[in-house]
Amino acid sequence: MTRAALLRSLTQNRVVRAMACHSPLSGMIAEEAGFDALWMSGFEVSALYGLPDASFITMSEHLDLTRAVAARTSIPIIADLDTGFGNALNAAHAVREYERAGVAAVVLEDKSFPKMTSLLADGRQELVRTAEFQGKIEATRGARHGELMIIARTEALIAGLGMDEALERATAYGAAGADLILVHSKCSTADEVKTFASRWTGQVGLVVIPTAYPDFTLDDARAMQSVRVVIYGNHAVRASVKAMQQTFAEILETGSTFAVEGAIAPVEEVFRLQGMDGLKADEKRYLR
Amino acid sequence: MTRAALLRSLTQNRVVRAMACHSPLSGMIAEEAGFDALWMSGFEVSALYGLPDASFITMSEHLDLTRAVAARTSIPIIADLDTGFGNALNAAHAVREYERAGVAAVVLEDKSFPKMTSLLADGRQELVRTAEFQGKIEATRGARHGELMIIARTEALIAGLGMDEALERATAYGAAGADLILVHSKCSTADEVKTFASRWTGQVGLVVIPTAYPDFTLDDARAMQSVRVVIYGNHAVRASVKAMQQTFAEILETGSTFAVEGAIAPVEEVFRLQGMDGLKADEKRYLR
Amino acid sequence: MTRAALLRSLTQNRVVRAMACHSPLSGMIAEEAGFDALWMSGFEVSALYGLPDASFITMSEHLDLTRAVAARTSIPIIADLDTGFGNALNAAHAVREYERAGVAAVVLEDKSFPKMTSLLADGRQELVRTAEFQGKIEATRGARHGELMIIARTEALIAGLGMDEALERATAYGAAGADLILVHSKCSTADEVKTFASRWTGQVGLVVIPTAYPDFTLDDARAMQSVRVVIYGNHAVRASVKAMQQTFAEILETGSTFAVEGAIAPVEEVFRLQGMDGLKADEKRYLR
Amino acid sequence: MTRAALLRSLTQNRVVRAMACHSPLSGMIAEEAGFDALWMSGFEVSALYGLPDASFITMSEHLDLTRAVAARTSIPIIADLDTGFGNALNAAHAVREYERAGVAAVVLEDKSFPKMTSLLADGRQELVRTAEFQGKIEATRGARHGELMIIARTEALIAGLGMDEALERATAYGAAGADLILVHSKCSTADEVKTFASRWTGQVGLVVIPTAYPDFTLDDARAMQSVRVVIYGNHAVRASVKAMQQTFAEILETGSTFAVEGAIAPVEEVFRLQGMDGLKADEKRYLR
Repeated sequence: MTRAALLRSLTQNRVVRAMACHSPLSGMIAEEAGFDALWMSGFEVSALYGLPDASFITMSEHLDLTRAVAARTSIPIIADLDTGFGNALNAAHAVREYERAGVAAVVLEDKSFPKMTSLLADGRQELVRTAEFQGKIEATRGARHGELMIIARTEALIAGLGMDEALERATAYGAAGADLILVHSKCSTADEVKTFASRWTGQVGLVVIPTAYPDFTLDDARAMQSVRVVIYGNHAVRASVKAMQQTFAEILETGSTFAVEGAIAPVEEVFRLQGMDGLKADEKRYLR
Repeated sequence: MTRAALLRSLTQNRVVRAMACHSPLSGMIAEEAGFDALWMSGFEVSALYGLPDASFITMSEHLDLTRAVAARTSIPIIADLDTGFGNALNAAHAVREYERAGVAAVVLEDKSFPKMTSLLADGRQELVRTAEFQGKIEATRGARHGELMIIARTEALIAGLGMDEALERATAYGAAGADLILVHSKCSTADEVKTFASRWTGQVGLVVIPTAYPDFTLDDARAMQSVRVVIYGNHAVRASVKAMQQTFAEILETGSTFAVEGAIAPVEEVFRLQGMDGLKADEKRYLR
Repeated sequence: MTRAALLRSLTQNRVVRAMACHSPLSGMIAEEAGFDALWMSGFEVSALYGLPDASFITMSEHLDLTRAVAARTSIPIIADLDTGFGNALNAAHAVREYERAGVAAVVLEDKSFPKMTSLLADGRQELVRTAEFQGKIEATRGARHGELMIIARTEALIAGLGMDEALERATAYGAAGADLILVHSKCSTADEVKTFASRWTGQVGLVVIPTAYPDFTLDDARAMQSVRVVIYGNHAVRASVKAMQQTFAEILETGSTFAVEGAIAPVEEVFRLQGMDGLKADEKRYLR
Repeated sequence: MTRAALLRSLTQNRVVRAMACHSPLSGMIAEEAGFDALWMSGFEVSALYGLPDASFITMSEHLDLTRAVAARTSIPIIADLDTGFGNALNAAHAVREYERAGVAAVVLEDKSFPKMTSLLADGRQELVRTAEFQGKIEATRGARHGELMIIARTEALIAGLGMDEALERATAYGAAGADLILVHSKCSTADEVKTFASRWTGQVGLVVIPTAYPDFTLDDARAMQSVRVVIYGNHAVRASVKAMQQTFAEILETGSTFAVEGAIAPVEEVFRLQGMDGLKADEKRYLR
């Protein structure tokens, strides 16, 4: 069973929980923790590179990491393709590459390229025309070979265009063949996405990213019949940032690493994640 | 002033503290915390890729990340070249590439290729002949164009060859032109490296990586006249691992991200690290 | 002397001839042949990857090859940045990366992203507003650290906007700080660029790419006082394509490689280009 | 049908002819010419990078190009893995990566790492012990998931160890599970490999690379019952080198590209290879 088929199946049976990742290591830890899927986040990969989430990292940088994540994990990967790296033809090319890399789904958003991160309070947020984005969805559908899911993300609410526009766009994207609709909101409560979901009459399910409304629970998602996927969008990198800042400060203050040893993973735990036991078994078996 | 010149100068005036990093983000946080230098660690990059530290990651993978770290930081970078990716000629090629990437120093160790991580309790640890390693040092000296420092790392103590062998090798490596000697130890106290330092009569300074003896303080290093650099070898990735494990578990347990919000960096802090303020200023200035 | 300084100097003393390249090998052969500079061509790199020249290859793919070319050559490299991979801010980011890679000049064109190759008879050719492109030039000037030359390329003639528009745009780009103006034409004679040059009153020199008018000679360029650089845009890859097609067909037809041996470079010539003599000398010197 | 299954099938029904390639472009031209398979050559990729074929290019560089070739071609790819980038464990890791990239076969040679190209008249040629190489074959067999073919290449004749040693090693490699045996020779006639084939009693077929004996024909190969694959090892890059040298010289001599236009591929032919027609059709269909 491919990961794409697995994700299709999962979205029919439960609310899928996807954790952001930015590296094979973070993906492995998320899989081990019990998440259903991985969110190969443009925001997190941008952060890993120390660059703004504004179309600075290249498709190659994101794709290479995605491929490396796929090699070290087995749960479905949902790849964040931002705007698709250009027009409908560039997006179709991207989808071919990501499908080849083994992802289960891609997310394309209806912003114009280059994008500005949706999370910024006062960032510019320009959307492409609905018909143009439908062409992008159709081109990517035409490009895929297998069961890869194409998730259309509308930023209409983020851009302040209102609920009606968001619903119209989502309906149009569904009509163009999107497998799921991601509706993004930066409201500090889930009211906006709940209203959207209550008015949603489309055939396909919804995806949400509750970064701005963190008290949104899995039970909330389940209660909204149409929500099929909840993406936790940036918590892997945010956890890492805080931990490194604290650890580094304490080492400098105390003059040694002694004080931090108990607060960070032991070296042996990293060995375990790296598969050192398997390596040692293979050494015994194959080195002569 | 190049970073290589800066590192040369720093090593003459203080005990340099270098923090391990595995990405531009971790390097930026270490620089901001106040470390003098960065340790572009093979162990950490291997861990980022979820692979054992046994010559699995390629020079390209390590070099590409090193270059990206250099682009986002300004303090000297000490690059962990393991065994130099082959023989003396491969090592010389590697040194040309890393010097071009802007690093201040490279570390070459006297193990045979492919290496097994030094930290493993019962890993195989095979060393190349002293003369062969001297050839490697000379080849890399011949390859560099500028002030890049070449640090020779002896694993004689790790391999259980004894103090005399370690001192003989270190002396031979200094004679071959190494700029500094890294003496690695997996004893749980600093006694071994202190004994080494007390018997060291070479002209060049020493480097230590106190992973196994974490109570080794900066004052200890200062007290050992010959120690010029202390490398904290893997604390960036170990801090990240623990933080992600805890954060992920709590999100799954509580059904939302609400409970972890206070324990991880806010989104705004990631924006700050990504340079979002500069980007917004540039938008005002250049977008028309 | 940096390559950027060298190119600045060369453009003041002669008409610089730049040959297209798509790999270290093609760059090395062009340098050895006697060209003054290399044109790191988007068209050629796209062709190497078997993809249309329509913003399909990523900045990473082009930049990685550019860096590899820089490592194996010493003449100035003029990097084809197409539209700059996005808006003014993305272009500024790109310029920082290419400057770090050691190029002497970058070319930015005034098309909208994603581009369609200029050489196509009936391709869509949309230009950005003049003021927007001026912002791009200013942003890249603000981003560079050294003497890197910024070459503004106008596609006004390619897009059928007429000579007046081409001159107005070129003047505006010079006013915004471009170091040279590249005026592109797909006329089958040089008349169009000659007319442009005769009416050009700007302070900065001109660059031409005579793909469409191949009888344009170096003497023609010299006679046009303002032309400082002639770029031969795609002849490395076109030569390779024909040679491989002929060689492959003959091997299949004759059933062996015997018939082609005299028509292709001997293995020893490839050894020479690879620096095998130096390698063998280094082996004697450093392998023990 | 995977490419691995296709290659397995082809090797049972005919003598497979594989052409060397170093890029998607060269692979596409070889497929179009009519070759059965592609040889993703370490020598050619090294030459593309202007580096000696002595373990200087990294697995990443070779693998990235291999993956790009796979994306643009459909015939089986035989990947040249040299010595496997280290010991049996590194080779197993490499095989997992190349299988994921979609290759049909990998070739592993029994030299010690780092290798020196087999073609050099007086290059050092050191072989690993037979048992060690058997371990490498077994480890790679254990690592593959599908029908990928593992081809064991013995350099015993190249290293001057004699026919008996070559046959013993080949037999041992077959016993360890190799799917095919590549016997390499630098004799200027095919006598050596013919003798080998006549004495070969192993169950698996043979592969030859007749670079040194170019008058070896397809009929010769067919006459040797056991030969299943003939690899033309370096003719793509050698054809390109000569063509670029001639083209560049003529442009510089004549002062324009006029004289070379008839001798090189027209721009339109490159467009065709790049798939420009499909792109234009997709533009009509999807851009709105």
